[in-house]
Amino acid sequence: MPALPHQPVFILVNPQMGENIGATARAMLNFGLQDLRIVAPRDGWPNEKADAMSAGALAEMPPVKIFATLSEAVADCTYIFSSAANERDMMKPIVTARHAATDMVSRLENSERVAVILGRERTGLTNDEIALSHAMISIPVNVDFNSLNLAQAAAIIAYEFAQTVMETPGRVVPLGKTVPATGAEFDNFCRRLEEEIDKGGFFRAPELRPSVTRNIRTFFMRAEPTSQEVSTLHGIITAIKAGRD
Amino acid sequence: MPALPHQPVFILVNPQMGENIGATARAMLNFGLQDLRIVAPRDGWPNEKADAMSAGALAEMPPVKIFATLSEAVADCTYIFSSAANERDMMKPIVTARHAATDMVSRLENSERVAVILGRERTGLTNDEIALSHAMISIPVNVDFNSLNLAQAAAIIAYEFAQTVMETPGRVVPLGKTVPATGAEFDNFCRRLEEEIDKGGFFRAPELRPSVTRNIRTFFMRAEPTSQEVSTLHGIITAIKAGRD
Repeated sequence: MPALPHQPVFILVNPQMGENIGATARAMLNFGLQDLRIVAPRDGWPNEKADAMSAGALAEMPPVKIFATLSEAVADCTYIFSSAANERDMMKPIVTARHAATDMVSRLENSERVAVILGRERTGLTNDEIALSHAMISIPVNVDFNSLNLAQAAAIIAYEFAQTVMETPGRVVPLGKTVPATGAEFDNFCRRLEEEIDKGGFFRAPELRPSVTRNIRTFFMRAEPTSQEVSTLHGIITAIKAGRD
Repeated sequence: MPALPHQPVFILVNPQMGENIGATARAMLNFGLQDLRIVAPRDGWPNEKADAMSAGALAEMPPVKIFATLSEAVADCTYIFSSAANERDMMKPIVTARHAATDMVSRLENSERVAVILGRERTGLTNDEIALSHAMISIPVNVDFNSLNLAQAAAIIAYEFAQTVMETPGRVVPLGKTVPATGAEFDNFCRRLEEEIDKGGFFRAPELRPSVTRNIRTFFMRAEPTSQEVSTLHGIITAIKAGRD
């Protein structure tokens, strides 16, 4: 198994049941993964039911990190997958868990920081949450009974990752590649852009603002900007503002 | 998906927790499998906790068949896999879940009756039970934390089977929603952008202008903008200009 600089991070968004958190931790550790983050767990943290259901995994792993918002949880991540049960009307790649695993391994070999976000039971992830991701993981299921348990989805993604790592005896790492922008750098840029265009009256229909904002983020995210490119984009905004006719 | 004469049968041997039976049923149906058999369930049958945990799967599937012994449960099966956490001193093939899936599909295509037997929580299958199987399925896990939850093991085996059957393409591109920008639209946008940032003094070193321009084009091209997105980008430039402080 090739040594990877980082492991993929699993992020549970607003999970309701401690049992599912514990079962997710157990499945992660079954496949060697130990970086679990939780955004606003409904019943707080720590959680006795999570501990019990983890069968010792939570005690063995480094402490789970708790965040108030998803943007904070992904701030140090450069490539983010969201797990989504159904297609949304967004121009994001949709990949199978198997394809995602291959992609994750390549990115991790290249020292990227990869995250997988998993939504709440029943309602999954909101469109705004999915908008923070670069690609969606769709596990191919029975269309007539397609609601996967949260921990089952986590297990399958972790399983596919582990299989891919094990089958990858040592690959050539692309050299001289540039440093991808972090989630925080990207988010800062998007916020600034939104602020600047808002001043110019861009959002004519306020009710469309959330979806228009998401679409703009989706566009820039699809290009997977490097850190350097995010600086360039800031420079572009500054120059357009400075260049009065 | 090729029509198979039969599905693989999943057989739980002496399961203790109704929750695990329900979670197994849910995972099976998630991947289109409906033939669940149970040998001597500890808490009898039916089981309320199993029903609750199955999220509707047990109600939707044909009734679970209950058997007193494993030999009776596999009586109509021609090829039997046992799921075993660790190797036993038996001369039986040990295969990964992925390999087992391929083998299952070939056998089912050949009208064989294939079964997967899964052992009790904690203690798994006895050697006598494993002796009833033709091959053992071993899911490759973290050697330091190798105890998979029963329903997770079932989910992974069902998942691998379904992936093999479905021949799912790795990457699904959202269709019919967008028109890619033409070269002319893209070029117009880039020219306008360059002009606007030039007015703002963006190109401080004239000798670097060609390479900087190329890098900016490369960035936007990488996102493969749609025609609609190019319009949005024009709107963004207009808005930034209009909203100057």
